[in-house]
Amino acid sequence: MTLPRFALTPGEPAGIGPDLCLLLAREAQPAPLVAIASRELLAERARQLGLSIELLAVEPQRWPDAPAAAGSLYVWDTPLAVAAEPGKLTPANAGYVLQTLTRAAQGCLDGTFAGMITAPVHKGVINEAGIAFSGHTEFLADLTQTSQVVMMLATHGLRVALVTTHLPLKDVAAAITVERLERVTRILHADLRSKFGIDAPRILVCGLNPHAGEGGHLGREEIDIIEPTLQRLRAEGMNLIGPLPADTLFTPKYLDQADAVLAMYHDQGLPVLKFKGFGAALNVTLGLPIIRTSVDHGTALDLAGTGKVDIGSLQVALQTAYQMAASRAD
Amino acid sequence: MTLPRFALTPGEPAGIGPDLCLLLAREAQPAPLVAIASRELLAERARQLGLSIELLAVEPQRWPDAPAAAGSLYVWDTPLAVAAEPGKLTPANAGYVLQTLTRAAQGCLDGTFAGMITAPVHKGVINEAGIAFSGHTEFLADLTQTSQVVMMLATHGLRVALVTTHLPLKDVAAAITVERLERVTRILHADLRSKFGIDAPRILVCGLNPHAGEGGHLGREEIDIIEPTLQRLRAEGMNLIGPLPADTLFTPKYLDQADAVLAMYHDQGLPVLKFKGFGAALNVTLGLPIIRTSVDHGTALDLAGTGKVDIGSLQVALQTAYQMAASRAD
Repeated sequence: MTLPRFALTPGEPAGIGPDLCLLLAREAQPAPLVAIASRELLAERARQLGLSIELLAVEPQRWPDAPAAAGSLYVWDTPLAVAAEPGKLTPANAGYVLQTLTRAAQGCLDGTFAGMITAPVHKGVINEAGIAFSGHTEFLADLTQTSQVVMMLATHGLRVALVTTHLPLKDVAAAITVERLERVTRILHADLRSKFGIDAPRILVCGLNPHAGEGGHLGREEIDIIEPTLQRLRAEGMNLIGPLPADTLFTPKYLDQADAVLAMYHDQGLPVLKFKGFGAALNVTLGLPIIRTSVDHGTALDLAGTGKVDIGSLQVALQTAYQMAASRAD
Repeated sequence: MTLPRFALTPGEPAGIGPDLCLLLAREAQPAPLVAIASRELLAERARQLGLSIELLAVEPQRWPDAPAAAGSLYVWDTPLAVAAEPGKLTPANAGYVLQTLTRAAQGCLDGTFAGMITAPVHKGVINEAGIAFSGHTEFLADLTQTSQVVMMLATHGLRVALVTTHLPLKDVAAAITVERLERVTRILHADLRSKFGIDAPRILVCGLNPHAGEGGHLGREEIDIIEPTLQRLRAEGMNLIGPLPADTLFTPKYLDQADAVLAMYHDQGLPVLKFKGFGAALNVTLGLPIIRTSVDHGTALDLAGTGKVDIGSLQVALQTAYQMAASRAD
């Protein structure tokens, strides 16, 4: 039996992504893992960090089928446009960053990779280079021709998916429509089954308003939109609990009996997730035809090249991708 | 030296408030604590719970100056209109509930009590009785002629105050005005000093939008309203950190150096607080001329008379009131 192979993209070359990949390579992985990055960048960053990591060249037709040994890292060399210095953003390397993502995603689509794990990119510098780019998630949705994706963050014992993501707060209520809620719930339910191996997922659904609207006194979206939508989906057999007040949902009474929480918006669900999962939380994009997990933090430009970074989030992103691929293969 | 004396209101007679007060009385308190309630109700509920608690009658001109012994409770008898059964709401007793609150608050104003601790009331049944009532907080603000109060929840190691409280989510953004933010911040800062004994409070302030607006890309309230207001208050010497993204603020890097968090709205701040403080969180009303703390949960009508209730929240509400009174006296 051949082990499934995974792609790792270090993202922004001036950020901590390359550092994280090198620090990770000190220990062996349970599966062959291919960093898609500039070999020169990784070699230089390893020197800066005082790390001795052997960079093993791989490429199409020459893929590894066994894990690399501790202290070594498979690299599919993808050259930079210009040399990268820690902390110094360069629009000239925007094309490089997108090429690493494209290689990883196409490799997932053609079966070379069982999944991809991404370190952070810097949206601003890619846009400065004249390329419209609003994030990994949207880029991968386009590349895989997916019309709706769902952002889910996870840590040990808690998964939180979002109905809306990066919207100004004033626009959130209007974005909670029957159509969107139904699409997102279907994707969450389907992916918990197909990618996480949960046969009958139990999903806790937050209300939109404080106290889930308190019977209409604090907003009507629960009555007009959320409850009827959940009711219709329950009739198809989905186990959906709610809408529940967000400030009582995140307690053992509810969480102990659930596989995931569906929050209506970013700051309703993610503060608890990141509080509980500090240093060990990851981001999963649901709805894609491929498996993609990511760290839950940014490029931390000021820490690149210092070695003062925590690989906890990258480790759980990798473990989750491995588990997802195994669940999918079952 | 006379010990400060405190008032305890069991709230809704059909709820778990009377049960909590009786369960609490099994242990001695460090200060004289007077339950303002129907003696008959407490005696009957004690029988139902199989508790032997001695009810010690007290009243104006006959206040106790020493704590009651374990197994006894001071009671200022305040008669019900009709007998109360666990779980059965009766509008006829709405006037009773408000009388207990009025006695406690007036006792705080005239120096009889150093503070009041409240168990939950049921807003619905009071309104059904034809009395406009939107909660303890508003009732006490009216009674003490206070124009602006601030709701703060707390648990061991975390305090979260709110700029807006019980508003539909769609109305939150418009409610974040310079005037409101300034008033709330001043009250929080002043009460952390005067009622919590913190000389130079360090306050973490959340942004309104995800990622605190990400430089204006995800909303402009941080730039137009929050930052200029904080800047002006900082010039007066207040230590205000932010606006910070709510999903990174609740991590040790920030929390370890702060005395309180100021969240812009209910579900931005309270899910983390109740997750961290499960079973041991309390509510404090800031801005009042009196000290008032409360449990963080509701009347739990279905649990009244069963004994299956957790007094953790009432215990921290009491401890906090005692500490606040001591800080104030310093």
